[in-house]
Amino acid sequence: MKEPLTSFNPHLSVDCVVFGFDGNSLKVLLVEKVADNHAKHIPRKHKLPGDLIIRMEDLYGAAERVLLELTGLSNIFLKQFSVFGTPDRISDPDDIRWLEDTSGVTISRVVTTAYYSLIKIGKSKVKNVVKNNASWHDVANLPDLAFDHEEIIKEGIKSLQMAIRHEPICFELLPRKFTLRETQILYEAILGHELDNRNFRKKLLKAAYIEPLDEKQNGVAHKPARFYKFNKKKYELNRTDILNYNF
Amino acid sequence: MKEPLTSFNPHLSVDCVVFGFDGNSLKVLLVEKVADNHAKHIPRKHKLPGDLIIRMEDLYGAAERVLLELTGLSNIFLKQFSVFGTPDRISDPDDIRWLEDTSGVTISRVVTTAYYSLIKIGKSKVKNVVKNNASWHDVANLPDLAFDHEEIIKEGIKSLQMAIRHEPICFELLPRKFTLRETQILYEAILGHELDNRNFRKKLLKAAYIEPLDEKQNGVAHKPARFYKFNKKKYELNRTDILNYNF
Repeated sequence: MKEPLTSFNPHLSVDCVVFGFDGNSLKVLLVEKVADNHAKHIPRKHKLPGDLIIRMEDLYGAAERVLLELTGLSNIFLKQFSVFGTPDRISDPDDIRWLEDTSGVTISRVVTTAYYSLIKIGKSKVKNVVKNNASWHDVANLPDLAFDHEEIIKEGIKSLQMAIRHEPICFELLPRKFTLRETQILYEAILGHELDNRNFRKKLLKAAYIEPLDEKQNGVAHKPARFYKFNKKKYELNRTDILNYNF
Repeated sequence: MKEPLTSFNPHLSVDCVVFGFDGNSLKVLLVEKVADNHAKHIPRKHKLPGDLIIRMEDLYGAAERVLLELTGLSNIFLKQFSVFGTPDRISDPDDIRWLEDTSGVTISRVVTTAYYSLIKIGKSKVKNVVKNNASWHDVANLPDLAFDHEEIIKEGIKSLQMAIRHEPICFELLPRKFTLRETQILYEAILGHELDNRNFRKKLLKAAYIEPLDEKQNGVAHKPARFYKFNKKKYELNRTDILNYNF
């Protein structure tokens, strides 16, 4: 029933879906599929930062290396969310040729482990993401993507939608001082639909670990809104109370 | 910087953490690491149902095949929860020898994708899980396990703990008609700690899709408790209301 296993030589890769928020929309960091000199025929499509893993590297280590090499980012939150291993996930002849040209190996099948990251786009280190033509793209308006990377991004968004329901990870995307309005815009961007204003604010204000600051917005056209901050220590202390069961 | 990729030949496997509930405790289905005839020296340790994947098989398909081949189970809920790929995850010489004896290939490194399943132990098809000496073990009292399977089970429990907070998947483990007490025992078994009786029942009863039946327990020593059932249709209809954000 089984084919000889020795003939089955899959390659393993990691891909990183780096989500960022600039105050308006949810964005994802893409790099360009740059062709080698001898492979000029290949169209420059966008792709996720990713690579085949090397011999003694664990998956998380590979994801960290890939981000540093391809985008210059380091020390950021990384969460494994899924592995993609359908036999035909890499089927576009252009994609296969590009992979073989850049890796130097014959590709029969690649199984990839996907991670997502959450970062604040405003931070200076993130603004300097220029390596390999890395650039931010609205998740609602993605360019043509190589491989199955559109599917990977969609699955990443689904994981993020699940995660924001029971973990305070949205604060990884918000600036240190944020307004209630910014938080709602972020939630709506992740969920892909609007939320009821009043209910949302009421819920946020009920959380003891979201603390008002004695500070308001500056130089805005509308009435300046109060800033809040996330108190991680308080969150950790009350964790068992917070994690409720949604029957 | 990279070693030649051609020299890196990882094997891919799937492992299934099948959780079951018998009304008292959370259990996991283990098979025995049966030695080949020519490998009698290998101790019979327990392991998760799992196997290397074959050439044109996707990961989900491999998990389904493994369960059918090793336990006789089919058509059950399967959820991918993590991939384990540390280079040294298979390091015990006995484990390596067993793998090489049974697979016929030289093993340098195996990366495994883990799935969990949830099943009702009471069901007849599940009682007949006898293939390959498959047997149920309390998660709180696991035998000596091969490879890193203890870690995989622990990660599986963590995923399950997360999942029961925002999805009604506990009903996959409960009989079709269940009491509130049974539900609480199940939650306590998954979470590993006691829950407040009154709060738990209050929350359960608030959920419109948990419906009381005109039927009570029979032949029990204590006051017979009412049966309830999970109304999946009602749940799906109210999904957007149910999925709240826990600030």
